[in-house]
Amino acid sequence: MEFTVGQIAEVLQGIVEGDATLRIDRLAKIEEAQAGALSFLSNLKYEPHLYTTGASAVIVSKTLILKQPSAAALIRVDDPYTSFTTLLEFYQQATRTGRRGVEEPAFIGADSVIGDNHYRGAFSYIGQNCRIGRDVVIFPQAYIGDRCVIGDGTIIYAGAKIYAETVIGARCTIHAGAVIGSDGFGFAPQPDGSYKTIPQIGNVVLEDNVSIGANATIDCATMGSTIIREGAKIDNLVQIAHNVEIGRHTVVAAQTGISGSTKIGDFCVLAGQTGIAGHLSLANRTTVTAQSGVGKSIKTEGVLLQGSPAFNLRDSLRANAIFRHLPEIERRLSDLERNSSVPEKS
Amino acid sequence: MEFTVGQIAEVLQGIVEGDATLRIDRLAKIEEAQAGALSFLSNLKYEPHLYTTGASAVIVSKTLILKQPSAAALIRVDDPYTSFTTLLEFYQQATRTGRRGVEEPAFIGADSVIGDNHYRGAFSYIGQNCRIGRDVVIFPQAYIGDRCVIGDGTIIYAGAKIYAETVIGARCTIHAGAVIGSDGFGFAPQPDGSYKTIPQIGNVVLEDNVSIGANATIDCATMGSTIIREGAKIDNLVQIAHNVEIGRHTVVAAQTGISGSTKIGDFCVLAGQTGIAGHLSLANRTTVTAQSGVGKSIKTEGVLLQGSPAFNLRDSLRANAIFRHLPEIERRLSDLERNSSVPEKS
Amino acid sequence: MEFTVGQIAEVLQGIVEGDATLRIDRLAKIEEAQAGALSFLSNLKYEPHLYTTGASAVIVSKTLILKQPSAAALIRVDDPYTSFTTLLEFYQQATRTGRRGVEEPAFIGADSVIGDNHYRGAFSYIGQNCRIGRDVVIFPQAYIGDRCVIGDGTIIYAGAKIYAETVIGARCTIHAGAVIGSDGFGFAPQPDGSYKTIPQIGNVVLEDNVSIGANATIDCATMGSTIIREGAKIDNLVQIAHNVEIGRHTVVAAQTGISGSTKIGDFCVLAGQTGIAGHLSLANRTTVTAQSGVGKSIKTEGVLLQGSPAFNLRDSLRANAIFRHLPEIERRLSDLERNSSVPEKS
Repeated sequence: MEFTVGQIAEVLQGIVEGDATLRIDRLAKIEEAQAGALSFLSNLKYEPHLYTTGASAVIVSKTLILKQPSAAALIRVDDPYTSFTTLLEFYQQATRTGRRGVEEPAFIGADSVIGDNHYRGAFSYIGQNCRIGRDVVIFPQAYIGDRCVIGDGTIIYAGAKIYAETVIGARCTIHAGAVIGSDGFGFAPQPDGSYKTIPQIGNVVLEDNVSIGANATIDCATMGSTIIREGAKIDNLVQIAHNVEIGRHTVVAAQTGISGSTKIGDFCVLAGQTGIAGHLSLANRTTVTAQSGVGKSIKTEGVLLQGSPAFNLRDSLRANAIFRHLPEIERRLSDLERNSSVPEKS
Repeated sequence: MEFTVGQIAEVLQGIVEGDATLRIDRLAKIEEAQAGALSFLSNLKYEPHLYTTGASAVIVSKTLILKQPSAAALIRVDDPYTSFTTLLEFYQQATRTGRRGVEEPAFIGADSVIGDNHYRGAFSYIGQNCRIGRDVVIFPQAYIGDRCVIGDGTIIYAGAKIYAETVIGARCTIHAGAVIGSDGFGFAPQPDGSYKTIPQIGNVVLEDNVSIGANATIDCATMGSTIIREGAKIDNLVQIAHNVEIGRHTVVAAQTGISGSTKIGDFCVLAGQTGIAGHLSLANRTTVTAQSGVGKSIKTEGVLLQGSPAFNLRDSLRANAIFRHLPEIERRLSDLERNSSVPEKS
Repeated sequence: MEFTVGQIAEVLQGIVEGDATLRIDRLAKIEEAQAGALSFLSNLKYEPHLYTTGASAVIVSKTLILKQPSAAALIRVDDPYTSFTTLLEFYQQATRTGRRGVEEPAFIGADSVIGDNHYRGAFSYIGQNCRIGRDVVIFPQAYIGDRCVIGDGTIIYAGAKIYAETVIGARCTIHAGAVIGSDGFGFAPQPDGSYKTIPQIGNVVLEDNVSIGANATIDCATMGSTIIREGAKIDNLVQIAHNVEIGRHTVVAAQTGISGSTKIGDFCVLAGQTGIAGHLSLANRTTVTAQSGVGKSIKTEGVLLQGSPAFNLRDSLRANAIFRHLPEIERRLSDLERNSSVPEKS
């Protein structure tokens, strides 16, 4: 795609200073941009880059007073950051998620319905008795099992696998390779030490505006539902076990694992590679730092946890600061023992 | 699916108390059940729920004496838990894994054979010279490479990827997105610091009744076989490296990683996010707690390990209990030093 | 596949001692080999196995002087290890990656070009405007989005998912289920505590000879590129976030996670389950041991790190050695306190 500076200014209702006929074929950060790129200046800390950038054009504020002449064309707008974000969204839609229609062969089972203005990529599979909304984008090789429900505007990337009876809200994003609704890891030990599989007949429910990362896995409930509440964001390779509940607008970073039946509150942040044990409850606004392991429920809101096993961040930082000096501590202790033993023996 | 209470009682050879014409369309826990649901009461601790449940019907013991009248219809059987489990299994089979036949387009290569009563979903792929048993269920977009062998009754979910020459036993379950037989991570360092790929020509062998979780990865052996023994259960996102051997009825929880050539014994339990270094051997019935890292072989059976690096659980719990108080320990030590130094100086 | 000892000797320009008509159908380690297998003896530490091996034939050095008669046929060559590796590579190519042609149905979008001598498996998908080199092997159900560029000789295994605009060099290997180019995990917090998705419009660039493991995930840059430099080897289930850069010939073992905008130098080794925080820089030849968590940039080359949080390996080993004895340390401290307090009180 290629636009002129003038065309972009028109879309943004901005004013051009410089050559409006310059051609733009990509968006870039002001400090990295090269010819053909459009950039923006919002935080004035970056203003020096304006005079050295390789960008063909830069979106700036209407109120900016130049300290030097700009080699790049300028598009002056009310709010450069918002204007740039609008372009980013437009670009992403144009290049990635804006496709519509059906590529054959695509499979759709009996009694499934799907709304207008959708895309179904080649080799995508929709089972029987599904109800799928409008403006839904289903990339190639995605799998949607029987009796699933999917809301308007949801995007399912290539090869995501959604087991039967999953319920997905509106405007969700499911990235490639994510698996939603696989069996909970439930096995009943037998007298001989072997295990009998406990049938898992529940499902997964994602509310609206949920995002699920690439190759993440979310198990169905044994009975009932594993639930990801509105606006929660789940990163790549996260594991969410059976009957877990993730609260509204909670963020779970990559490679974190949450064990069965645990409930995470609203507005929580779980950093990368965190582990949460089963059957716990974390209060709203709990924050867990990277690689921590939480083994107890948290009842107070707003707690920061660190460590494996995790406790409050401040104490954990202090304990870790001393951990490094354990050899020195041991030496000091030995010195004291030597000194104190002398009088005893004497 | 919908059945009447009477129909379900007949299947279970139970006796109905109450309205046998009530319609049941799902199974639920007694404390969560609502109208239309069938539940069960086995552990008498839950008996109070019997009198308040929203379930339309509850399976109870023939010997149960009611303390109050039950609003729900009752189905009286000899063993409520077993009866309910039977229904769970029936339900899972009816809704998930009971499909039979071939959905086109499905690919099967030259000289491959597959037994009776199987399902091959649309866009599933079977390579050349495969021998696949009867009652096998292969979901859409699953991949089975050349010369694979798969036993009777095995279920392969959507998009699981099985490399050439893998051998899978009977009644195994491979969940969506699992990858079995990818190359071992073997590279020979060269004088210039780069790496030369060591060809990986071994395979993976899963014995009978093995379960592999969603998006788990199991590498083939460099030569010979990576082996998962009978009845082992591997959870989501687990990594099993080349030439590893997992013992019979061993359970490996989510996001655990096992490095190359390590042998895990029978009846072991590796909790979530555990790491086991390469070329080790863990005795039968070893238990490793979550997020632990095992760097040494374990020769004694029945050991419990914790920590990274891991040592025995009891000592690890004690060391962790004191770890939290390291700042206090340091302060006590400083106090002693101050006290002990006074006499020295005086 | 089956060859005679004589045929193999001819390929390797070796000399047969023993029965050149014996049939070989597999390769195996000398200590595990059975009838029908060909093995090799390079390290003379293994020489005793030569006289007891079940192999039908063994590749040995021209200069080897037998201490006993060999039951196996011998193929004498200049360098047994190199000869055997040649056979391994030949075997892997013959059985796995040597397939050519197109299996239908396979999808290729408008204006995409692909070079000679390629394989496209059934249900593989190539988007629009892709430029793909020669000798490329694309397994079934692989997905390649629009405007991707892929170099000569690259192998993409079953079900790997490559988002639009990814650039992949020559002779790369992408294992099954890997996801390349998924959205970076970028969300702008809103005043009400919810998150707004930041569009991710960058891409991923893999240089030549890069290997990506099964079910690994590599996110695209927010703007610009996430870059994996020449010869880097990425293991299974690794997570690489947006705008990360991995240096030349760096090795990243399974289940490691690297957070956004971090730059890893050349010739580094990150062991399994390691975590690297965001916006850091690790110097060339940094080594991080398994399960460690790196929270600070490393400016000196060749540093070894361990622990979570990580510090230098030697100090970490010492601190861990004492950590186990913390209960004893506490007891010693209490003893001293008891002793020292007596005089105070007296």
